[in-house]
Amino acid sequence: MSEVSTSIRKDISLYCSSCGASFPPDMRLLACTVCGEPLLVKYGEISSNPHMEIPVYSCNALVSLGEGNTPVIKMDKLGSRLPCENIFAKLEFMNPTGSFKDRGTAMMISVAKGFNIANLVEDSSGNAGSSVAAYCGKAGITAHIFVPSSAPQPKLDQISVYGAIAHKIEGTREMVTDAASDFVDEKGYVYGAHKLSPYFLEGTKAFAYEIARHNLGEMPEHIIMPVGNGSLYIGAWLGFKELIFKGVISKMPKMHVVQASAVKPLVNLFSGNHEEEPIGITVAGGISVSNPPRSKLIGEILLETGGHATAVDDEVILEWQKILAQENGIYCEPTSSSAFAGLEYLIRDGIIAKKESVLIAVTGFGLKDNLYI
Amino acid sequence: MSEVSTSIRKDISLYCSSCGASFPPDMRLLACTVCGEPLLVKYGEISSNPHMEIPVYSCNALVSLGEGNTPVIKMDKLGSRLPCENIFAKLEFMNPTGSFKDRGTAMMISVAKGFNIANLVEDSSGNAGSSVAAYCGKAGITAHIFVPSSAPQPKLDQISVYGAIAHKIEGTREMVTDAASDFVDEKGYVYGAHKLSPYFLEGTKAFAYEIARHNLGEMPEHIIMPVGNGSLYIGAWLGFKELIFKGVISKMPKMHVVQASAVKPLVNLFSGNHEEEPIGITVAGGISVSNPPRSKLIGEILLETGGHATAVDDEVILEWQKILAQENGIYCEPTSSSAFAGLEYLIRDGIIAKKESVLIAVTGFGLKDNLYI
Repeated sequence: MSEVSTSIRKDISLYCSSCGASFPPDMRLLACTVCGEPLLVKYGEISSNPHMEIPVYSCNALVSLGEGNTPVIKMDKLGSRLPCENIFAKLEFMNPTGSFKDRGTAMMISVAKGFNIANLVEDSSGNAGSSVAAYCGKAGITAHIFVPSSAPQPKLDQISVYGAIAHKIEGTREMVTDAASDFVDEKGYVYGAHKLSPYFLEGTKAFAYEIARHNLGEMPEHIIMPVGNGSLYIGAWLGFKELIFKGVISKMPKMHVVQASAVKPLVNLFSGNHEEEPIGITVAGGISVSNPPRSKLIGEILLETGGHATAVDDEVILEWQKILAQENGIYCEPTSSSAFAGLEYLIRDGIIAKKESVLIAVTGFGLKDNLYI
Repeated sequence: MSEVSTSIRKDISLYCSSCGASFPPDMRLLACTVCGEPLLVKYGEISSNPHMEIPVYSCNALVSLGEGNTPVIKMDKLGSRLPCENIFAKLEFMNPTGSFKDRGTAMMISVAKGFNIANLVEDSSGNAGSSVAAYCGKAGITAHIFVPSSAPQPKLDQISVYGAIAHKIEGTREMVTDAASDFVDEKGYVYGAHKLSPYFLEGTKAFAYEIARHNLGEMPEHIIMPVGNGSLYIGAWLGFKELIFKGVISKMPKMHVVQASAVKPLVNLFSGNHEEEPIGITVAGGISVSNPPRSKLIGEILLETGGHATAVDDEVILEWQKILAQENGIYCEPTSSSAFAGLEYLIRDGIIAKKESVLIAVTGFGLKDNLYI
């Protein structure tokens, strides 16, 4: 691997959000060498124009498949079911590979291309895998995707369709990560893990910029999303912070986290429940993450923005998947419909009031995970 | 059915593009009572502003799921394969149900809602069916979708997911249409056929408006799309005509038609081959239409714009499906990749030259038709 780059911005560095240590922008560095926390990107200079800061010099250096600029629609058919009047959905499944992951992947692979990387390893429950497969194909990078053999068939198929090498691993989600990690050690390839890459978050920031543009600076009061590793959640928060710094918006929305009752480490962290609990099985495969590497930062964002972390039951998740498809024309994954289940719980618990505005990220296309509908 | 409407524009009528006969805007009227040709929408008054004319009073009356505004990306990885420098793809599969059909359906169902229609019947090889199912769900209209039982499973599943009533018919595509037609006669429901509805074309017009906006009035020299019934092809042409009338653009692109070699009635019409030929089987299910009801108009558009109609072989279609996925990160249906096979033939035949700009519509998501990849 030759690390010569002309497209990467010269003023970027990586830093640890926990201890503050600073590092050069190396794609192989995925955690702070001092305290072990994952890293974030820091820009030496942030321009005062309203455009998003990106780690490459210009949009021409981006490996793009047309990701982002997803529509926001008003959910006017929840009224009888939920006593809320201002619920909006941002349809993130309308991305090139069918999930929000494309935002982060586009940026991560653009940087990988800038560093002339030839082989990239990723592990994923499916959506990130197919996304990385697609962008690596476009960038001319060989992608090695480690997936649980139990992932939905359309996601497994999609990875191969894009020409990536799929490594199907039997066992738990952790065993998939371990296998990817061993492969990286053995081959010396770059581990482009979406859950660890700081560049991935620089792509998902665009979610926040689009909301600001859509609402012309007026933020929704609440944002709700399903959170596993938090790559959209943290990216959106970074985007809002940058927008506040640039003076485009003045207020941060309350950023709520939804998890499945069977796998809820972030909810436990939020509620101060430190007892070890058994990890169960959930229909929401995209958020079935027992040990999110950036959980400390997610906890801080919850506190800072006044968000809540809520766990929802599988049967309510599946009920919402049906409601969204049959009454609202939105065919999403169970992982995505969990956010609407979360909305129901947050209203029930008095966290969200009738007149307040709510924006929900609909993260993945139902065509990719249709086991239960 | 009560036909009271407040949202339908009062200045619209329907007219026959063949004999010129004029009719009131009735959703049950799908063909000219004089000569039998399908109808188009006529506006009494076309404003001089650059906005698209729509048959409802305002955008607030639209049943929308966030369709349209699809990205255009430069195909910079075809260079070694095709000696062309300015090839662009408009990713129509990035629509709410995964195909361009959503543009037309949104308008057709908005009008149906305006007419207070409670039950709608459609027949489709799959994409139009799932699209109509989704928008009817949102509009509170009961959808009856007649499909060939041989349609790809993800498309059949998708129709049911949106809560429509799927009528699976064994036999030829024509037998599906006959069954739908019989059902309409028996029940007295409205036949909202995408291939016949003039309102459907008023939705697909937006494809042209977006190209004009994207290119700031500078049109691509060639547009290539797969054509079965021609609901995107004719809609785009109507859009370009309207844009010329409004003075937004000055030139019509050459509009090329691609069909599969096994089912090529429009290619035969174009080349003056009037011999009856047996209809074969093709991997491009979306354009497997042996007798397009608007073929006369499509022939006229080919002549008027200087377009060509080209038939491509299944093996080349499938080869392009792979190239697009593996080298360009675009996972589309065989129906969609046929347009790139068409581009290859048009360049080979000297119809398109190296420096000329070409825009290709990528009509449907590969997740919905993955039998061959």
